[in-house]
Parts: sequence; structure tokens; C-alpha cells
Amino acid sequence: MVSLRDLLAVAQIRPADGTGEELPRGLEGVVVAETSVGDVRGLEGFYHYRQYSAVDLAARRSFEDVWHLLFDGELPDRTESARFVREVAGMRALPPGVADLLPALASMGGPLDALRTGISMLGAELGWQPSIDIDDAELRTQALRLCSVVPTLLAAIFRLRNGQDPVPPRPDLSHAANYLWMLSGQEAPAAHVRAIEQYLVLTIDHGFNASTFAARVIASTGADLAAAIGGAVGALSGPLHGGAPSRALDMLDSIGTPDRADQWIRDAVKRGDRIMGFGHRVYKMDDPRSLFLRGVARPLGGSLPDFAEQVERTIVDVLAELKPGRQLYTNVEFFAGVVMDTCGISREMFTPTFASGRTVGWSTHVMEQVRENRLIRPAARYVGPAAPQPVPAT
Amino acid sequence: MVSLRDLLAVAQIRPADGTGEELPRGLEGVVVAETSVGDVRGLEGFYHYRQYSAVDLAARRSFEDVWHLLFDGELPDRTESARFVREVAGMRALPPGVADLLPALASMGGPLDALRTGISMLGAELGWQPSIDIDDAELRTQALRLCSVVPTLLAAIFRLRNGQDPVPPRPDLSHAANYLWMLSGQEAPAAHVRAIEQYLVLTIDHGFNASTFAARVIASTGADLAAAIGGAVGALSGPLHGGAPSRALDMLDSIGTPDRADQWIRDAVKRGDRIMGFGHRVYKMDDPRSLFLRGVARPLGGSLPDFAEQVERTIVDVLAELKPGRQLYTNVEFFAGVVMDTCGISREMFTPTFASGRTVGWSTHVMEQVRENRLIRPAARYVGPAAPQPVPAT
Repeated sequence: MVSLRDLLAVAQIRPADGTGEELPRGLEGVVVAETSVGDVRGLEGFYHYRQYSAVDLAARRSFEDVWHLLFDGELPDRTESARFVREVAGMRALPPGVADLLPALASMGGPLDALRTGISMLGAELGWQPSIDIDDAELRTQALRLCSVVPTLLAAIFRLRNGQDPVPPRPDLSHAANYLWMLSGQEAPAAHVRAIEQYLVLTIDHGFNASTFAARVIASTGADLAAAIGGAVGALSGPLHGGAPSRALDMLDSIGTPDRADQWIRDAVKRGDRIMGFGHRVYKMDDPRSLFLRGVARPLGGSLPDFAEQVERTIVDVLAELKPGRQLYTNVEFFAGVVMDTCGISREMFTPTFASGRTVGWSTHVMEQVRENRLIRPAARYVGPAAPQPVPAT
Repeated sequence: MVSLRDLLAVAQIRPADGTGEELPRGLEGVVVAETSVGDVRGLEGFYHYRQYSAVDLAARRSFEDVWHLLFDGELPDRTESARFVREVAGMRALPPGVADLLPALASMGGPLDALRTGISMLGAELGWQPSIDIDDAELRTQALRLCSVVPTLLAAIFRLRNGQDPVPPRPDLSHAANYLWMLSGQEAPAAHVRAIEQYLVLTIDHGFNASTFAARVIASTGADLAAAIGGAVGALSGPLHGGAPSRALDMLDSIGTPDRADQWIRDAVKRGDRIMGFGHRVYKMDDPRSLFLRGVARPLGGSLPDFAEQVERTIVDVLAELKPGRQLYTNVEFFAGVVMDTCGISREMFTPTFASGRTVGWSTHVMEQVRENRLIRPAARYVGPAAPQPVPAT
């Protein structure tokens, strides 16, 4: 949060040269735009999509219904929901030009790299034009297609990386069920489908985080949808933004047994390590996504959810003792890893799975940006040596 | 420009929910970071890289020397320059994994789409790790490689799109000369090489424009270099940012002869058309890049530079009459198109050629961002319907 007093404290005016105010580093708490997609109320531990609590939506509605809410502003009724489900289920196939190149692409770098490349190719192959040169309806259709294809792209990348043939999408399955089907080639248990669906709903959007903001900056130039979403995937690949769910699980591995958690966390803090899965820029209390996912994980069974809860209690207590006032709680990534692992998703697919749902949120932001666009072009304060100095001859 | 008074007029404090101030739309004039890469002094019609005027550098130094200035902070002396030229000339070859896929990629969408895909693949194929997980020297080496390879990638894309085999890079040629060589398979006249080199120097960087800012937002997550530069290329593909040089030349085509310019521009203004190649967010006077490029174009000969100057005079005069106080002058794109066309660069390669030089500027910003990083995560003001409302059952 930034108060006006804080802002004035750092504000600098440079009327002579056309640049303006200086803001907190990382633009923390700085309002850069208006949005009606949703909001994160960090101090209340609450966030919402449009007019509904995200957690309530995860408890009660399907991924497709929430997708409809984001794209069209309202939850669908039963008829609209059925129509929407049919529409997006029919859009899951990869264009052949993209599918043909996937075997060569899938093993270049990690799965997020392949997704980034695949989205770039998809937009090019489908001939997507600059978003400002097409109308709302056409951009919405492109976005529906993109959000439907990304899980197909990711599942194919995963299987090809593991020496398996891609499994074609099944239009008779829900978005979440089809994703798990394409990953494994087997129908997942209903409890797993619902757990993953709830995870995808919970993470479909979350304010002006770095990837969403990157998508909006790119979209503000009028660039096509693939340019904006490809940029967002790139941002998500950064460890400071999207890289943590698998690292949180790596941490659980390295702890091994509940009784070792206390010493492990004390050692990690002593070494100055970053504790993965704890703390958040916006939430200074329990992350509502973490609370919900803890409840999702528990009934899935297996030893991991129980172990994770024990470790969580120990770490939160020790952090409160060692870093008083820092208010470090589990963030979304801690139990996200637990849920995905328990549902059979491979660790390297944790962040890509997050990306598959977040593509809906990114696309919603791109559509909003384009609808009321102004090119995002900020300024910077030059702090290098005085210019101009004479250029020496070679 | 934004004054503190303007800022206060729009500032809103929302201490209850953790979000903060509201800023001018598009962040116009808002200082979002410190930089020592360079600065644009819009009201003075002046811009610089590090401590030197960009125009002076274009007049006196090579592209490689300015590249060295951006990457390492100083112009090289004769020995350093020769070493740097050798180093980057040896990095131009495409990795085979990327080269093999180019024939399939080159014709998917436009050349900027293929560049975006190609850069994404390049980073994956070379195994580039998150920028925060590697040291300064390794990131610099990756950036040298990227800036050296992009012209090769672009020339290959161009030739493949036109049914020609790619021409391999020649390490004995300068950066600019080699680019023209790879495009045409012929050694370009020295005057053309120098004109294109001067264009590339003039446009190597230019403040916190949308593509540069996109690259920095992505880099702030710790993502790898290819993610950041791929996002920047995506932003550049937006018509509001990078799409104009070819459209300015299209306008000259449609005007046809100098005597028709007066009526043409009056008709265009009456229709409310956007006039390509005129006006700039930051410069409210002659764009220094335009002034310089006019001088570069003139001695190249041919009828286009002379024609363009006549049209420019007419349009500036008519715009001053019809839109008094708007201060619309030619921007960089007007004479950039004239110079590139006269030097034999195909119209569809105008913005890609710009991108090939700007990759040096983008990379410099990424390195600066990573060195003093803080995740860029702003906030937004929610303006949708009040939340939470109860979620209806399906």
C-alpha cells in the first residue's frame, strides 16, 4: 500500500524536460488503470471476479461458468452454460501447422518455453490481426479459441517430452476433465477433476500481477492477442512470479518428515534462503486461495495433504518467532502443489497448468485494455552521467 | 508531462483496501523507474544514450561502437572496438535446431510473428535460464548472442517467405553490411550500408516506450532473456507503437505526386484519418531522428527523398493550419521508410529491421532491470459492480 504522504515523499517534478513523478519501486500499490475484471483486497484477505467472491465461485461453479463470467460479465444460466460449454469444447483442436511442429518444439527448454513458442505460432498460423484492427466479437472468438487450445498444447508438449504421442481432446468432457484426460490418456477420478477445476477457478485471475500487466502493456500497442498472451507466459516463467509451486513441493521433499520441519526452517532462515510458498506482495494475512486449497487437498487422501498441513503449522509458527511482524503465511503456491501432485500432475506441469487457467484472466484483461485503450508509455528518471558530452573520434 | 498538481487532481487514496494512487492514463509522463541507459528530453527535441547525444553518435560512430556503449557503459577505443566487432561477428549463426524449423515458421503470419516465435525458440534451444539465476556476465553473453542472431533470423525469414534459401552470415562484414548481405545475397553499396547503420544507431533505444517497458516488466519476474525480448517484439507489432514506417510510405504512394499532397492531407483530416509518420507522444517539435534521417536520405539519390521532403513541407503546413497548436511534425517513421526503401529494404521488413537494432536497447534495459530488480506489480482501481454478491446456484 502507498499513502499519499509516501507518494509525495518520493515525488519529484522535472517540468523542464517533460518527465514527471517518481513512484515506489516495482509500482507497488500504485493504481495504473481502472478495471472491472476483479479486485484483490489484500488487507481483507479477499478477492473477487466481477461481482462475485472468487472463493465462492470455486466452491459452487464450474470453470466454464467462471470463464463466461469473466468474458461476458455475468454468470450463465443453465441454458447459456450448456451452450458455452459446447462452444468452447469444440475449439480444442490444434491447427495442423502448429501440431506438426510440436514434436520438434516440445523438448526445447521447459514446457513453459514450448507454450510461449506454441502460442506465438498459433496466433501467426491463425492469422490473428492487430487487436485494434478487429472488432470486439472477433477478439472474443480468438480468445475463446486460445483458452481452449492452451490445455491441448500443454498436454501435447508434456506427452511429447516424455516420449508419448499426444492424446486428442475429447469434446464430451469438461475443460478440467479433458485436460487431465489429455495429460494421462485416462479418465481421471471425479474427485481429481473437481479439485483441479477448483484450483483453476481460484487462479483464473488475480489483479495487476506482473504477467497480467505485461499482457496489458503489450495489448495497449494494438498488438494481436498471441503477442500479449505470449508475453504474459514469458512473465509467468520468471521465478519471482510464477515459478514457486514446484519449488514449494521440493521443499516438502527436502524436509522429508514432519518432525524435521522445525529445524529445517530455522536452518533455512539462518542461511537467508527464500522460503518458497510463504509470503505475498499483497496479502499480509492468510491467502484466501491457500485456505481454500487446504480444504480441497484434505479429502483427496494420501499422505501429502496431512504432511503439508503439519509442515505449514510449524513453518508459520517458526517464521512468526524469527521474523516477528512480517506476517508470513502460506500463499497459493504451497497447497497448489499439494493438490496438483495428489491429482497426478507432474511437477514440471505445475506452472504450465496454472498458465492454462490464467490464460482466461489474461485474455479478459487484454479485451478490457483494447476496449478502452491508451498506449502505455511511461517515463524514467535518468540517473547516468551528464549528457551530452562530445563524442570522441574513433 | 504531468505536474504534481495534475497528479493530485486525480490521486485517490483507498487506505481501507491496500491500493493506492491513480495516475494519468497510459502512464504518460509518469516516472516508473530510474535508468542510466539514456533519456528523451521531449521539450528540447533531444535524446541521448548514456552520456552522448544519439544524433552525434549516429553521425560519428559505428553500430557496434554504440552497442558497446550501451552494454558496457563506455565507447570503445580502437582496440576494444576491433575486439568487440570480432566477438559479435562470430555469434551470428543460427543454432541448427532453430534453423531447421524456420522454413515451416517463416510464412506463419508476418515476419514479426516469425521473429517473435524464433526468439522464443532460440532461448529454449540454447537453454537460457531465468535471468535472476545467472550472473551478469552470462546474461551479457546471452544478450550479445541474441543481438547478433536476430538479423540472421530476420534475413532468413524474409528470404524463405520469398521462396529463396537463407544466405549465411559473413563474419568479415560489419553488423549493418552483413544484414544487407543476408537480405539480398549481394554486397550493398557503402552509402547504403552507412545509411542503414545510421538508422539503426538512431533507433537503438528511446526511453520507456511500450516495448521497452514490456521487456522490463517481464524481466522483473526473473524470466529469461528470450521471454523479455519476445514480449518486446510482440509489443512492437502493435500498430500504435511500431507499425507505422511502412504505412507512412503507403501514404506517399497514395499521394503519388507532390502537387496532390495539399488536397490529400485536407481530405484525410476531414475524414478524421490518423496521419502516419506525423506526431509523437513525447516530441512536440521536430523529432531529432526525423531531422537526421532527412539528411541521411537526401544524398542517397533517387526521386523518393526529394518527393518526401516536398510532401512533408505541405503536410506540416496544412496540419498547422487545420490543427493549430497541435504541433504535428514528422516523426522517425516518415524518413525511416524513405531511407530503408531507397536502400532496397522491402516494406514488410521495415519494422523488423527496426526491431533488429532495438534488440540492443531492449537487452540493455533487461540487464539494467535484472541488476537492480524489484518485481513490477502495480495495482488497479476496481470500477465494476459491487462485490461480493451471493453466487447463484446453477
